[in-house]
Amino acid sequence: MLVHRSSPTHQTTVSIAGVPVGEPGLALIAGPCAAESERQLRTVAERLALMGIQLLRAGVYKPRTSPYSFQGLQEPGLELLRIIKRDYGLGIVSEVMSVAQLDRAYDVFDCFQVGSRNMQNFELLKALGQTRKPVLLKRGLAATIEEFLGAAEYIVAGGNAQVILCERGIRSFDPATRNVLDLGAVALLKRLTHLPVLVDPSHATGRRDLVLPAARAAAAVGADGLIVECHPTPEQSVSDAAQALSLDDLAQLVTEVSAVAQAVGRGLSYPVERAA
Amino acid sequence: MLVHRSSPTHQTTVSIAGVPVGEPGLALIAGPCAAESERQLRTVAERLALMGIQLLRAGVYKPRTSPYSFQGLQEPGLELLRIIKRDYGLGIVSEVMSVAQLDRAYDVFDCFQVGSRNMQNFELLKALGQTRKPVLLKRGLAATIEEFLGAAEYIVAGGNAQVILCERGIRSFDPATRNVLDLGAVALLKRLTHLPVLVDPSHATGRRDLVLPAARAAAAVGADGLIVECHPTPEQSVSDAAQALSLDDLAQLVTEVSAVAQAVGRGLSYPVERAA
Amino acid sequence: MLVHRSSPTHQTTVSIAGVPVGEPGLALIAGPCAAESERQLRTVAERLALMGIQLLRAGVYKPRTSPYSFQGLQEPGLELLRIIKRDYGLGIVSEVMSVAQLDRAYDVFDCFQVGSRNMQNFELLKALGQTRKPVLLKRGLAATIEEFLGAAEYIVAGGNAQVILCERGIRSFDPATRNVLDLGAVALLKRLTHLPVLVDPSHATGRRDLVLPAARAAAAVGADGLIVECHPTPEQSVSDAAQALSLDDLAQLVTEVSAVAQAVGRGLSYPVERAA
Amino acid sequence: MLVHRSSPTHQTTVSIAGVPVGEPGLALIAGPCAAESERQLRTVAERLALMGIQLLRAGVYKPRTSPYSFQGLQEPGLELLRIIKRDYGLGIVSEVMSVAQLDRAYDVFDCFQVGSRNMQNFELLKALGQTRKPVLLKRGLAATIEEFLGAAEYIVAGGNAQVILCERGIRSFDPATRNVLDLGAVALLKRLTHLPVLVDPSHATGRRDLVLPAARAAAAVGADGLIVECHPTPEQSVSDAAQALSLDDLAQLVTEVSAVAQAVGRGLSYPVERAA
Repeated sequence: MLVHRSSPTHQTTVSIAGVPVGEPGLALIAGPCAAESERQLRTVAERLALMGIQLLRAGVYKPRTSPYSFQGLQEPGLELLRIIKRDYGLGIVSEVMSVAQLDRAYDVFDCFQVGSRNMQNFELLKALGQTRKPVLLKRGLAATIEEFLGAAEYIVAGGNAQVILCERGIRSFDPATRNVLDLGAVALLKRLTHLPVLVDPSHATGRRDLVLPAARAAAAVGADGLIVECHPTPEQSVSDAAQALSLDDLAQLVTEVSAVAQAVGRGLSYPVERAA
Repeated sequence: MLVHRSSPTHQTTVSIAGVPVGEPGLALIAGPCAAESERQLRTVAERLALMGIQLLRAGVYKPRTSPYSFQGLQEPGLELLRIIKRDYGLGIVSEVMSVAQLDRAYDVFDCFQVGSRNMQNFELLKALGQTRKPVLLKRGLAATIEEFLGAAEYIVAGGNAQVILCERGIRSFDPATRNVLDLGAVALLKRLTHLPVLVDPSHATGRRDLVLPAARAAAAVGADGLIVECHPTPEQSVSDAAQALSLDDLAQLVTEVSAVAQAVGRGLSYPVERAA
Repeated sequence: MLVHRSSPTHQTTVSIAGVPVGEPGLALIAGPCAAESERQLRTVAERLALMGIQLLRAGVYKPRTSPYSFQGLQEPGLELLRIIKRDYGLGIVSEVMSVAQLDRAYDVFDCFQVGSRNMQNFELLKALGQTRKPVLLKRGLAATIEEFLGAAEYIVAGGNAQVILCERGIRSFDPATRNVLDLGAVALLKRLTHLPVLVDPSHATGRRDLVLPAARAAAAVGADGLIVECHPTPEQSVSDAAQALSLDDLAQLVTEVSAVAQAVGRGLSYPVERAA
Repeated sequence: MLVHRSSPTHQTTVSIAGVPVGEPGLALIAGPCAAESERQLRTVAERLALMGIQLLRAGVYKPRTSPYSFQGLQEPGLELLRIIKRDYGLGIVSEVMSVAQLDRAYDVFDCFQVGSRNMQNFELLKALGQTRKPVLLKRGLAATIEEFLGAAEYIVAGGNAQVILCERGIRSFDPATRNVLDLGAVALLKRLTHLPVLVDPSHATGRRDLVLPAARAAAAVGADGLIVECHPTPEQSVSDAAQALSLDDLAQLVTEVSAVAQAVGRGLSYPVERAA
């Protein structure tokens, strides 16, 4: 398999809009679950800049359990992201669910996110293998490590080696947390593959008060970065309100994760001295 | 939700190529995991006819964990199915994984199967909602009943009410069987929705010797039919060899399931007296 | 392993108070979750007799998640069961959680039930291996088949071959049903072991309206019997109220299960013609 | 519930043989899966002393899936632990599976471990509630947080408030790791209860090469300590050989965990400057 690591020093670094994701630095991606308004995005973007975070996540195509739930702003959201990207110079990480969306978003998104529900949407993976942009592939809700790496292999085998893996919690029997953050899998992936491995502590826990400790643990276990949900007014978020951090909480996360990253011999990919 | 049942007698029957799927009859769909050759398909089709089974399953687009595994015969397989359909008058049930495949297979497939991995491929579901052909929607490996019905709702809300649900086993902690057949979910679905509910005892167990008892149990619990993998020479099947029934075993399954169906006040949708 | 089946005809029948549990008959055990009062137990016992059910389940030592929940009537309950046994001639199947309880209940219980939480309470299993009374061993909530058979082996290796296995649902990710009834495991156990295999459709589903279909499915899959919760006034049950059948529902279950049992070439161990 | 935390500063510290377990320090317990020989234990004890680890784990009563597997040295093992305790002054943490074992081990063990399989062995929990020694309660393989805290409540309600919780991995669908380390649950427990929460990275991962990253993650998430398996010659361990650390690896773990503990504002309960 092309995704397998041939030696302990075999490590890939993927560049998203010039920002390195992969060892030795710890990459941070943050932003709202969904793009909601220009004002929301500008507020977030300004704070991210202060914290030294250069990659923005924000969904415009939203996978939702019910067809009657908010499906994202779609094309108007795409235009908002184009403006934000132009004005703040942030790299944009955002989900696509089909080849058609991939085409429409191609010049706006700097990294295509494949969500958990589409981890084995093989036709989409094959299409992404034909592109020349980074892909953030999230682990399926009940995907084994073998399946996860197999999905990544579809993209790499297609010709696109810029794949970033992301553990975001798996399904379990306990409703106490939204999902179960599988950090053992992250440690294992770091041994099996040369691809960068990120962690999404927001979906993994589903509770705002658990995101910080989960983020610290991800940094300690050896993850190559984090993708975190935040919102100017979390309780008013149109989706995932329970798990979004406030922007102040996010600044605190940057500080705490930075300390842990240093303790394990790594620093942030982004200068933390600029953090608020 | 449009998929919800408004009363105990609210039941939908979906017609696949003229064969009713839904109460009161028990529908049977059988065939190989993958279309492999004209000879294989003709052998199966002839025996299905003898057993009174009028719906053939056979994959030409195969979702596989690894990109290096057999991906199905693709378009040449489509041509084989066209021939079989013409010569034997069987209704064709087969999987599509993308809108492009849906378009290519439109005049050959009588029912589009959505596999477990694509249960929440919402863009595909929306496209299927625009068609006027039946859809067999398989439950995701770790999909809750709420998510399963939500996925069906995407299709129905799009304008296509011809949706058949299919339980095919869920992920669990025990490697003893491939998956865990969740017949409690089938009983629950029969209470919650008016859509027909099938069971796939082949993927649910993954072991040939467990398919018959699982099929009998599905009939007893109230399922509206079965979709079963069979092969002229199971041990030579290019995929899912461990779970494919021989054609003789399939005939035995028809006999046993028929007896159970009658015991619960139902018969087969297909006359069993013609079985070998 | 002593519990392994040496040939397809290698089958053990365990006798509980003279009632055979094991092929070819289908054994029925029914009664309330917990013994609550003499009146409750007499009402149940009278109806069981009318239905031809000769084995009564009723807990006096109840394993509960919280120490503040009803823990069973304990010794006064033991006395009630002694009276019921004397007056109605029913065999008593009831749970013990420790060696001390085993000693106290020894002359009242005809079959010791080991609950899911104690499936790997090896000291209890060893003590039961020293007795000469039947043991009904329930599968743990997340026990593999290998672990389940290993637990049974502890009892048999200790010298007591009268072990009955019981599938009662496993933990899964979906809150829609209390547990997931794993009938594939039942079919597999019937191939692996000569011990009788029962099913508990009450705990497996946790919903009254799903108990009947689950019971029919268990009979169809090849289970050797059922253990079912019922109550004279289910909604007033002190525990497991949501899953207890009324006595009329239980009579309906006997009728339906009997029909399925006959369809798979088996009858009830108890004459159904006496059913109400 | 007595185990619930009444305020953010409500924290219990449990003393095992004079060693504090609970905030602010991080407690370390280490030793072999099973006591095997005096030589093995002396080798371990000497190295633990050099590392500043004052609590020894070593099983003499071993819960095993099969009755034919090594069941621990039993009483001779108890005598070995008595000698080690006398000669090295280490606190002894070891598992009991029954009230009888509890009585026999009472003057040797400084902390009674309740294993995952016995988390809901309520009669054992009640007996432990009557003692005046610390209890290390491991989470069941599929226990919810509610059930875990309920089990702890049995002990505390019985009069023994010296309870330490331990997350040791839960069951999942993926065979890639032995269990899934649920650090989100640790973060949640730290919010819900005032009891100390430890992590067992050895059972949680089941692979030697994942124990160190898992241990660092546990320290980062806020765990109050670790219980780790080690062995003088891991590959010769009679049980759990795949997950036991060498003593050199353990020293490395102490160094790395100490660094992470300091990064999150905590130190080890034991002076790390004495580490080899």
